[in-house]
Amino acid sequence: MKKSILDEYRFFDPQPALRKTAYELYLNVRDLPILSPHGHVEAKMLADNQPFPDPTELLIIPDHYIYRMLYSQGISLESLGIPTTDGTPVEKDHRKIWQTFGDNFYLFAGTPTGVWLAHEFVEVFGIRQKLNSKTAMKIYDRMVEKLKTKEFLPRTLFEKFNIEVLNTTDSPSDPLQYHKKMRESGWKKRVIPCFRPDAAVNVASKKWMDEIAGISKVSGIDIRDYRSYIKALENRREYFKSFGAVSTDQGVESPYSHRLSEGEADAIFQRALKGQATDKDAAAFTANMLMEMARMSIEDGLVMQIHAGAFRNHNRNVFERFGPDKGGDIPVRTEFTRNLHEFLNEFGNNLKFTVVLFTLDETPYSRELAPIAGHYPAVKLGASWWFHDSIQGMIRYRQNITETAGIYNTVGFTDDTRAFLSIPARHDLARRMDSNFLAGLVARHIIGIDEAKSMGRALAYDLVKKAYRL
Amino acid sequence: MKKSILDEYRFFDPQPALRKTAYELYLNVRDLPILSPHGHVEAKMLADNQPFPDPTELLIIPDHYIYRMLYSQGISLESLGIPTTDGTPVEKDHRKIWQTFGDNFYLFAGTPTGVWLAHEFVEVFGIRQKLNSKTAMKIYDRMVEKLKTKEFLPRTLFEKFNIEVLNTTDSPSDPLQYHKKMRESGWKKRVIPCFRPDAAVNVASKKWMDEIAGISKVSGIDIRDYRSYIKALENRREYFKSFGAVSTDQGVESPYSHRLSEGEADAIFQRALKGQATDKDAAAFTANMLMEMARMSIEDGLVMQIHAGAFRNHNRNVFERFGPDKGGDIPVRTEFTRNLHEFLNEFGNNLKFTVVLFTLDETPYSRELAPIAGHYPAVKLGASWWFHDSIQGMIRYRQNITETAGIYNTVGFTDDTRAFLSIPARHDLARRMDSNFLAGLVARHIIGIDEAKSMGRALAYDLVKKAYRL
Amino acid sequence: MKKSILDEYRFFDPQPALRKTAYELYLNVRDLPILSPHGHVEAKMLADNQPFPDPTELLIIPDHYIYRMLYSQGISLESLGIPTTDGTPVEKDHRKIWQTFGDNFYLFAGTPTGVWLAHEFVEVFGIRQKLNSKTAMKIYDRMVEKLKTKEFLPRTLFEKFNIEVLNTTDSPSDPLQYHKKMRESGWKKRVIPCFRPDAAVNVASKKWMDEIAGISKVSGIDIRDYRSYIKALENRREYFKSFGAVSTDQGVESPYSHRLSEGEADAIFQRALKGQATDKDAAAFTANMLMEMARMSIEDGLVMQIHAGAFRNHNRNVFERFGPDKGGDIPVRTEFTRNLHEFLNEFGNNLKFTVVLFTLDETPYSRELAPIAGHYPAVKLGASWWFHDSIQGMIRYRQNITETAGIYNTVGFTDDTRAFLSIPARHDLARRMDSNFLAGLVARHIIGIDEAKSMGRALAYDLVKKAYRL
Repeated sequence: MKKSILDEYRFFDPQPALRKTAYELYLNVRDLPILSPHGHVEAKMLADNQPFPDPTELLIIPDHYIYRMLYSQGISLESLGIPTTDGTPVEKDHRKIWQTFGDNFYLFAGTPTGVWLAHEFVEVFGIRQKLNSKTAMKIYDRMVEKLKTKEFLPRTLFEKFNIEVLNTTDSPSDPLQYHKKMRESGWKKRVIPCFRPDAAVNVASKKWMDEIAGISKVSGIDIRDYRSYIKALENRREYFKSFGAVSTDQGVESPYSHRLSEGEADAIFQRALKGQATDKDAAAFTANMLMEMARMSIEDGLVMQIHAGAFRNHNRNVFERFGPDKGGDIPVRTEFTRNLHEFLNEFGNNLKFTVVLFTLDETPYSRELAPIAGHYPAVKLGASWWFHDSIQGMIRYRQNITETAGIYNTVGFTDDTRAFLSIPARHDLARRMDSNFLAGLVARHIIGIDEAKSMGRALAYDLVKKAYRL
Repeated sequence: MKKSILDEYRFFDPQPALRKTAYELYLNVRDLPILSPHGHVEAKMLADNQPFPDPTELLIIPDHYIYRMLYSQGISLESLGIPTTDGTPVEKDHRKIWQTFGDNFYLFAGTPTGVWLAHEFVEVFGIRQKLNSKTAMKIYDRMVEKLKTKEFLPRTLFEKFNIEVLNTTDSPSDPLQYHKKMRESGWKKRVIPCFRPDAAVNVASKKWMDEIAGISKVSGIDIRDYRSYIKALENRREYFKSFGAVSTDQGVESPYSHRLSEGEADAIFQRALKGQATDKDAAAFTANMLMEMARMSIEDGLVMQIHAGAFRNHNRNVFERFGPDKGGDIPVRTEFTRNLHEFLNEFGNNLKFTVVLFTLDETPYSRELAPIAGHYPAVKLGASWWFHDSIQGMIRYRQNITETAGIYNTVGFTDDTRAFLSIPARHDLARRMDSNFLAGLVARHIIGIDEAKSMGRALAYDLVKKAYRL
Repeated sequence: MKKSILDEYRFFDPQPALRKTAYELYLNVRDLPILSPHGHVEAKMLADNQPFPDPTELLIIPDHYIYRMLYSQGISLESLGIPTTDGTPVEKDHRKIWQTFGDNFYLFAGTPTGVWLAHEFVEVFGIRQKLNSKTAMKIYDRMVEKLKTKEFLPRTLFEKFNIEVLNTTDSPSDPLQYHKKMRESGWKKRVIPCFRPDAAVNVASKKWMDEIAGISKVSGIDIRDYRSYIKALENRREYFKSFGAVSTDQGVESPYSHRLSEGEADAIFQRALKGQATDKDAAAFTANMLMEMARMSIEDGLVMQIHAGAFRNHNRNVFERFGPDKGGDIPVRTEFTRNLHEFLNEFGNNLKFTVVLFTLDETPYSRELAPIAGHYPAVKLGASWWFHDSIQGMIRYRQNITETAGIYNTVGFTDDTRAFLSIPARHDLARRMDSNFLAGLVARHIIGIDEAKSMGRALAYDLVKKAYRL
């Protein structure tokens, strides 16, 4: 095997002594298995284990990190083959789409997507040329050849990537048929569902009633009121657990939490069943469901995750033509101290409970999140997330959080991706950045090299394993 | 010519390999022409082309960056010769003022003003001594001699500074007589107006009625209602375009945008004409005018700029005695995601439209502005602005924005100054800092040196030229 | 004396040239006396001058920085011997508590507490081993021996630490009997009170009435209404001054300031006397008292301090069992520009007045606080505080503030601790970090080495002396 064209010391601080220590720390964690307890890869892919059709289908069409940047420069989503929900025709020529991608790949210079793709091209596909206008088609053809081989089947890659646990993300109404199929296939790798109740919680959404009907169906519990709704959710959590689930996840614009009386909750629920729930109802109901989900977690042991701060579908044009998760979500300012006051007073001191907090707003890192995690035993901080799953994002995260919360109130690194091939790239980057962070502490004589090694291992593997009870 | 006493490697990271690359990248852009599409130098200065009277008049009296710092240390603005609007007498002895400046120049250590002034003394005036109590008068006399020479006439300096385009900032009622004079003088350099409608938009300001009267006069359109007001503004934009204008600029405390019906807008307008507009009226009208100005920009092609976040004239004592722009503006928290929701849904996907966003609040950089610019095709991010036009400010800007928006959704560097002599100093600093930023990416193997060179050129010249359609 | 096991170059940037300059600057300030004009060490300790009982009593039980971290990892406060207010029994075996501390000391890796403790163990106790499970008891015994010696009496340590001025923090009702005792003992060191009126200002607190009764008693002024209340506070300020006080301090959740009419203030005051003050009353009264305290400061010359941004006693379970200041305070977002508008317009231009602002929210550093301090002559910025009294906290503080406010609108370093032994560690860390910051400016050719030396001395000593009029 040829030497990689990616520099062995990439992403480390260029100061020679620091870089050397960073590399030593990186080697200590480089080959640890990958734990990925929060992601959006579809179970179907691993259940079916069919070859990926082509590079465009594999890398561009499912990845809004990529096409949002192209869109920002005036390239239409239709021309990139992104499927529409309103019937508008889109580009079908995947070679043409790839050429556009190659023409514009320079836009990703200095971005994490650029870094991950470089890793994917070189480390997964063995491609030694940079993607640009000239090389685009040659690279495409080379990848097409590779994708036809057994080495590039999803399960083979999963094993090659050394993934120990991979979580999918699933609605309560999901029958988990692909998890079932996977299990029945005899494949022994650990791919587990994660309980994501958003569609069942957001009573103002158009799709809420469908989700409720779906849950009624799969749970066999006829949901007529708040009480039967709660019972059905508890039922589904148990079902998810039977497929190995260890966690739940809620995506909320604001983490405001407040318990409603059963009467209040049911009143909103009844309005929702009639399609009359207001935005205010939805906010109150979400706040209540954060409390309820915590209560359930204490009872059934599922780790609770809260991902806060996205204004979903900000760009209505894009949403109406292409649906959700198409790059049009924009973060908003997020407050935790007051919003989680009731939540933390009820559950934050409970040693049976773990809640992992994620944020798109970095300003609470040092102000709110590190002090909260550095005090409440139930709270752990999730990794730097989404737009902040990046080199500078990770640096800011560690620099703003470690001094108040230490590293042991964080969960190490978790990715959050629907781009399967980017998983090893993301973990490799995180391991490099954490090694570099620790090397900086060593170089400044804040910690010793032995401490750094054990902290590095904790960040790459131990903390996530412990926090998610894997 | 003697070697400069300013270090050739100044402002670069001291790590030797990185510094070397930074310098290489800097040399690649150092001599590019200056594009300055947003500033406050007065057209009169270049139209008249008279010698600058003296160093105090040139450097201190027009520059609130300088006297705000002196004021913060208990030195009165009167003693610094800042003209009053209420008739209070001020110091007339410019040598004495300069001595005070010299006595207190140490206050600027570590500030961008300190850095720019060092550049101006050394590179423009050839002064090789540091300004302090002892050298103040000697330096003053030396500068007085220089200012008498032809080499220090405004136009000569303009040419020496290698300025390709300089924008002034002008109210709609401005007849642009100095632009006219400049044009008629046969001087071929490109000094163009920028359409700044703030005085015409802020219906709660005492000066609004004067501005409306002024616009009526210069446009020949009798402004009696909202419709004629809009027509007159459109007329003035055309007039500005006839003098080469390529952009507009709005300074707003909040970027909240919301279209009013013509009836609502006219109702406010009528109240304003009677001097009865409230603060709430003013906020609603401003929000509406952000929508209207975008609509006009799409029609006439002027690039729209929004400068948000200044609480103007925070210090009433200073405002009442000295007027606006005297160092008493203080930034406030600024929200973009929700405030621009309606604006971006109406105009953000329009490929004919360019809006450049500037902020005094840095917290939206990674949270809101980079995600917005990294998605909406119409949006570009303006340079780190005002208090953040500084070494650390530029570092934070690039580090917080690049990973999500890349560099190609920014407009490179633009200054924002009424201090003519600081223009080359500011651009030199920006070119050094961007070179240093890119060198950091090279040193970490995130980009290659060739990419860095083309990105460096984009940041120093190409991006601003393209964004402002120069 | 053996060479310290702490690296001489610790905390400095590892780049060799920069590190060398940082060390040179550090040596220039290392041995300057300590000025500590804001802290929570109790006067009783220095008045009585009795030996410290044991390491657990000395280092763990009084320091919520330490036990909040242990608590966050599931170790109960009872098991750490933290005294309860509700009668719940707690661990009495201090050796056992120390062992728990040793077992978990790894949690502090990378935190300022870890850094300070390392300093205390090595530089104060001469311990050359790292604290961990194995060494815990040996270290404990060693410390016990030391604490019995004269060298470890509070006053001896005070002198050894080279403390020039130490402030305690005292309520208006405090008779300052320990300050009196200290003075009468003939000990000549300067330990002075600081006037902290919070208990007397917060009309919604359960303890307010006790505080008012206490002030009545010690002042001899029968407080029946707002006017007599103000008179009594003025009286107590004079009393504090007679013990050398130079400053006051207010802890507020929000720095909102607004003058009430005497009638409004008295109406709230009367409600409070009946135990009927609401939270809204409390907020209005606090806002008014910020104005009143500033007015008094202008009259009596005490420097005013405002510490803003803590949501006190966020964890009710902890508060109810253990009382305040037990690690359960969580910061909140804090706004200064609008909140201080009235305050600064009335007092900010007054050259007889000094107000020092502290924040737990770092986002206003560059946005609001530096612009305010860089303009209003009365305003100085306090050091990076509490959770931000840390390596990265100090870096962010200087990087965000210096370019707009310079260093001369800050007050250099002040600690804020109830952990007496951490005082020299904290000042040493601050001197190292400021030296490193200045060395970075030298290495980037922004300032010269001579400027850096005088700036370093200002940050370590001169600025705090001047600002606090010591």
